[in-house]
Amino acid sequence: MGQTLAEKIFETHVADRPFGDTWVLRLDRVFCHEITTPIAINDLVSKGMDRVFDPSKIKVVIDHVSPAKDSKTADQGKTLRDWARRQKIKDFFDIGSNGVCHAIFPEKGFVRPGYTIIMGDSHTCTHGAFGAFAAGVGTTDLEVGILKGVCAFRKPETLRINLKGKLRPGVYPKDLILAVIAKIGVAGATDKVVEFRGPVIDAMSMEGRMTLCNMAVEAGGTSGVCMPDQVTLDYLWPFIGPQGDKSYATKEEALKDFVKWQSDADASYSSIVELDCSSLEPLATVEYKPDQVKTIRELKGQKVDQVYIGSCTNGRIEDLREAARIIKGKKIAPSIRAIVSPATTEVFSQALTEGLIRVFMDAGFCVTNPTCGACLGMSNGVLAAGEVCASTTNRNFFGRMGKGGMVHLMSPVSAAATAIAGHIASPEDL
Amino acid sequence: MGQTLAEKIFETHVADRPFGDTWVLRLDRVFCHEITTPIAINDLVSKGMDRVFDPSKIKVVIDHVSPAKDSKTADQGKTLRDWARRQKIKDFFDIGSNGVCHAIFPEKGFVRPGYTIIMGDSHTCTHGAFGAFAAGVGTTDLEVGILKGVCAFRKPETLRINLKGKLRPGVYPKDLILAVIAKIGVAGATDKVVEFRGPVIDAMSMEGRMTLCNMAVEAGGTSGVCMPDQVTLDYLWPFIGPQGDKSYATKEEALKDFVKWQSDADASYSSIVELDCSSLEPLATVEYKPDQVKTIRELKGQKVDQVYIGSCTNGRIEDLREAARIIKGKKIAPSIRAIVSPATTEVFSQALTEGLIRVFMDAGFCVTNPTCGACLGMSNGVLAAGEVCASTTNRNFFGRMGKGGMVHLMSPVSAAATAIAGHIASPEDL
Repeated sequence: MGQTLAEKIFETHVADRPFGDTWVLRLDRVFCHEITTPIAINDLVSKGMDRVFDPSKIKVVIDHVSPAKDSKTADQGKTLRDWARRQKIKDFFDIGSNGVCHAIFPEKGFVRPGYTIIMGDSHTCTHGAFGAFAAGVGTTDLEVGILKGVCAFRKPETLRINLKGKLRPGVYPKDLILAVIAKIGVAGATDKVVEFRGPVIDAMSMEGRMTLCNMAVEAGGTSGVCMPDQVTLDYLWPFIGPQGDKSYATKEEALKDFVKWQSDADASYSSIVELDCSSLEPLATVEYKPDQVKTIRELKGQKVDQVYIGSCTNGRIEDLREAARIIKGKKIAPSIRAIVSPATTEVFSQALTEGLIRVFMDAGFCVTNPTCGACLGMSNGVLAAGEVCASTTNRNFFGRMGKGGMVHLMSPVSAAATAIAGHIASPEDL
Repeated sequence: MGQTLAEKIFETHVADRPFGDTWVLRLDRVFCHEITTPIAINDLVSKGMDRVFDPSKIKVVIDHVSPAKDSKTADQGKTLRDWARRQKIKDFFDIGSNGVCHAIFPEKGFVRPGYTIIMGDSHTCTHGAFGAFAAGVGTTDLEVGILKGVCAFRKPETLRINLKGKLRPGVYPKDLILAVIAKIGVAGATDKVVEFRGPVIDAMSMEGRMTLCNMAVEAGGTSGVCMPDQVTLDYLWPFIGPQGDKSYATKEEALKDFVKWQSDADASYSSIVELDCSSLEPLATVEYKPDQVKTIRELKGQKVDQVYIGSCTNGRIEDLREAARIIKGKKIAPSIRAIVSPATTEVFSQALTEGLIRVFMDAGFCVTNPTCGACLGMSNGVLAAGEVCASTTNRNFFGRMGKGGMVHLMSPVSAAATAIAGHIASPEDL
């Protein structure tokens, strides 16, 4: 009987099986940001356990409130900064070199197939796009991870999603993941690894796969996961090849290693969901759960106050390129305010080089530095009560982007078209 | 007996002299931002007086927290936005087209010689650089201004500052105003108009004059003021000439009008202060009052955690150019975090065109959208307790940029050199 990728990762990383189906896994990475990690740091310090298991495996960023908006967030930043210096954590990304955690850590080559990763952030599942097991954890697990480099999990079952056919032009990974969540429901993958498979994935960029895995948690999933392949390898090659850490001399050698981190053909799944993607069209959420989804066509004309393009879901260079393509030469509607937050400093820099920052500015977008606080109503784009935002983020709970506010989740292209039209729209409506 | 410029403005704008030395002036402009104006709006609405005296004379911007950082600031923005729409105030600058109030309003040509201007902001004195009387006011005065277009003042005496000689290369208007405040003290101009005169002013750009007038309030001044001249005219010409509102057909005609707004040679001053500027060198504040000033040379090597370039004092294109000239091709010190906030969307756009945004980013600066919240510890760059900031802003009160933080006020060039050096430094130290 074969194994799923998640099972293989569990088998190869097990440090202990203390009782029942509890597996203690060795961790390859502990990722940290300034909102949840300072709580763990302060607790460890107060217990006289101000240590880290391995500073080279801990990666740290300030991203949620960047730069600090008040004394509280300034203190959080200082706690994280001082800790990184004290513990000799080399990879600490402060304002000016930072980015949204789930965008910058892959961009720096920190995520590899077969890795185990934890972070005090619910969208840690994003990193499964590289064939890793990556899960958001609470403060206690984060403390143990920082101190001992291990984390206890129940061995999860895997839900396989077969994505057949081909996305039509104008339909994006964001539309696809909304369709998946609509199909299986917000509790459809609870405590499961969500394995995205099929020709649609094979044809998808790493950026697109990250968008999919990012929202696995919106269906309750512990981690999203894609099978590492040539696309994964090409993305990681600058970091693992002769120009990188020299893990591999040739791509052939690396690929041979990568494909070990595949689910076996005869692996066992909790269930298998099929979705023919060829007929999908652009989608957006309605109301306050991510499985409440309608087509942009159905929603056309709905009122919007703010448009937000950014976040760990859709703030990458591909997203900005697609949005800018729609916006170029046009102006946002007078009734709209629009924000674009490039996900990382590198994305901002690349967008500068490609002239995308100019396109957004000329259209009337507010171009922020890299940050993601708007998504959870924490900074740089919070809604007032009664306001509606068309957003490329990942959560539409009531008040998520600001008390009393409503969020329509959608793709960057749909958000861009909405900004120009002044109400929910697709590029064809412009 | 001749009159000062301030006296001429009072004489030409008097609506009433109800008692004693109280003059009620007709207002040419009421400027508004999202922190103080919503309080006035809500109070007017609650009293059933939701009106404005003249929507064309009211200019409105969101600048202090841009974009909104929480529900409170989102509500403030919404109150201001809804009011501007309701009252048909055409000149409302929301995120994406906004800028720091005292930078964007001059940039749009809203300030003219001889104008009376109020705003619920202490640095309103900036606009006196155009030969206007511009004063910060409290909520009650702001409400009356919005409703009736008048404001009561005691007729102020004028303190004349004669700035002789010539600024040496590497010495900037910011150094000069720190020298002036150091000389006259933080109460040296209390309730007075501060009139900047002399060859140093004659040779100074409008940007430089705004930097001077901006900090008149730091010596207690009601308004700073410079005499309108050819420099003023050249700055305003796009707005008042044939390409603008056609107030004037020729520059000669305009200049004849402008120079009416000059203090007479035999005007009477409360006192006249002389300062020979030829020996000035770059300065910075120490401790917590703006008249506590030392030379950068004396302060060389002092610890700094954050560098901030921006604000209504020094976030204009000239400031960014000078700072970028120092920074180009260099990296900020690893111990430093650095922020640049272009003062307006236009400044950001121009800096983009000139490659300055690229220079700042490559050096490791966090480039924010136009905003000024860091200056008063309100957003986008708040200090933690114990932290020190080298800043181009205007106030160094204890905790001004964040509770328990300290601020060294200095020029953009000194701030830039400090960012590269990692401690207080001048360009020669790099």
